[in-house]
Amino acid sequence: MDDRRRIEAALERAVSIAAKGACPPRLAEAVRYAVFPGGARVRPLLCMSIARACGEHLPDVTDAAAASIELLHCASLVHDDLPCFDDADTRRGRPSVHAAYGEPLAVLVGDALIVLAFEHVAATLVDHPQRLPDLIKSIGRAVGMSGGLVAGQAWESEPQIPLAAYHRAKTGALFVAACSAGAASAGHDPARWLDFGLRLGEAYQVADDLRDVTSEATSIGKPVGKDRALDRPSAVRTLGVRAALEHLHKLIDEALVSIPSCAGANELRAEVRNQVRWFVPKDVAQFAA
Amino acid sequence: MDDRRRIEAALERAVSIAAKGACPPRLAEAVRYAVFPGGARVRPLLCMSIARACGEHLPDVTDAAAASIELLHCASLVHDDLPCFDDADTRRGRPSVHAAYGEPLAVLVGDALIVLAFEHVAATLVDHPQRLPDLIKSIGRAVGMSGGLVAGQAWESEPQIPLAAYHRAKTGALFVAACSAGAASAGHDPARWLDFGLRLGEAYQVADDLRDVTSEATSIGKPVGKDRALDRPSAVRTLGVRAALEHLHKLIDEALVSIPSCAGANELRAEVRNQVRWFVPKDVAQFAA
Repeated sequence: MDDRRRIEAALERAVSIAAKGACPPRLAEAVRYAVFPGGARVRPLLCMSIARACGEHLPDVTDAAAASIELLHCASLVHDDLPCFDDADTRRGRPSVHAAYGEPLAVLVGDALIVLAFEHVAATLVDHPQRLPDLIKSIGRAVGMSGGLVAGQAWESEPQIPLAAYHRAKTGALFVAACSAGAASAGHDPARWLDFGLRLGEAYQVADDLRDVTSEATSIGKPVGKDRALDRPSAVRTLGVRAALEHLHKLIDEALVSIPSCAGANELRAEVRNQVRWFVPKDVAQFAA
Repeated sequence: MDDRRRIEAALERAVSIAAKGACPPRLAEAVRYAVFPGGARVRPLLCMSIARACGEHLPDVTDAAAASIELLHCASLVHDDLPCFDDADTRRGRPSVHAAYGEPLAVLVGDALIVLAFEHVAATLVDHPQRLPDLIKSIGRAVGMSGGLVAGQAWESEPQIPLAAYHRAKTGALFVAACSAGAASAGHDPARWLDFGLRLGEAYQVADDLRDVTSEATSIGKPVGKDRALDRPSAVRTLGVRAALEHLHKLIDEALVSIPSCAGANELRAEVRNQVRWFVPKDVAQFAA
């Protein structure tokens, strides 16, 4: 089974198990709506590639780690879209969760996905508990109040936003988690993958900033121009389109060089080169003139 | 150190560690505001009593489990108070988190506390990973979309609310988690404590319904009469005050009888009798006339 199918199957397992039993039907439907169909699944793909490069030998553990990373990403999108944050009515080309199911269920879908991410990893690792602390810590750090997704969003409520910390928390942290959880699920030291994750996360953030100013809303499935409208820091606003694009390519090159030595480093480099094509915008040349 | 001090110290440890590093200052302050000073700490007290009854021998693990249960309880209060749910401006006798820090930070405080609950248990159990899957599963089930706190709140978005499932999810689940996490942190089978937790949770729910109609807002620190105003199911609305009070005492007696055999069962019974005095309302006689 290729990685994309593995990820969808792992997410399907996690969501189906959680929706069984005493789950209110509209909540189950809204959770499914938030997870399927997904975006490019960039983070779980990265997680799987790294687990394989580290000599993956417990595929179920990798699957659970990758699924949890994506569940947390989906949770953050649902909460970020809420009226009190970005107030975004569309996501992935259709109504955002609160637009489709109302604000109460949108808050609860985010909460449910965060819980599910941790619960699903624990349930899968019942027979391999020795890997669980590293995995939970990797995942928790990526979303928590100290440098994780929650911190990233919370910087927007501060009078001064430290740009580097903001981007690292809002985007970098989950890339770091994808890398460290991939390594941890193969029994490797997650700390060695920190640098690679940070660089790739920074690249993704610059790519996202570029998409925000250069794309049509229809091509990325969510409102564009939000950074300027919400007066948010952005590499494009700081550097301009051309320099931001150069910076993006430099970050990707640096990330590829920083891959730690491991059995499958060469294959991983090729896979990452392939994966970044999903997020590097293709239509920026006209804006860089 | 007595149990109350142990709980406050454990919560202080969890919150301080999380607020270090790259945590935005207002978020750190709002998280602390949501956790301190607490309410009666009924659930972590119960968790500790059960761990001790089961022959606790790793107090750090008990402390982490009890703290996590309370962090999740605090998270649920912060999100339940939001304008899109109960729209409660006061909690524990002062402004609720969103009233004090705004809605964006209130959403993020809830998210941060959920993440912290899982992360803190994992960080504490690095040297005892074999207990971690049971603990994470116990805690996750209590708050998740299938029968946990999130499910309880989500039933309010359904056209029909099944009363028993609603109360079990909204209140019972976290009592069950307090019991099963207490047992699991002492290395005992959490499943044996399910019945006891459910009965005690049901008792607490009835006590809460009674307080909602019979208390002054000042005495419980949050708005009263919310059940009727929000047209929510309530034991008092179904049974009347007198029968609800009788039902409450019957539930407590049944809970005490259902305590599974363990080394410290007698001491536990005495401790639970003492703990329920914190939630059984004392001023209902006049309403039962």
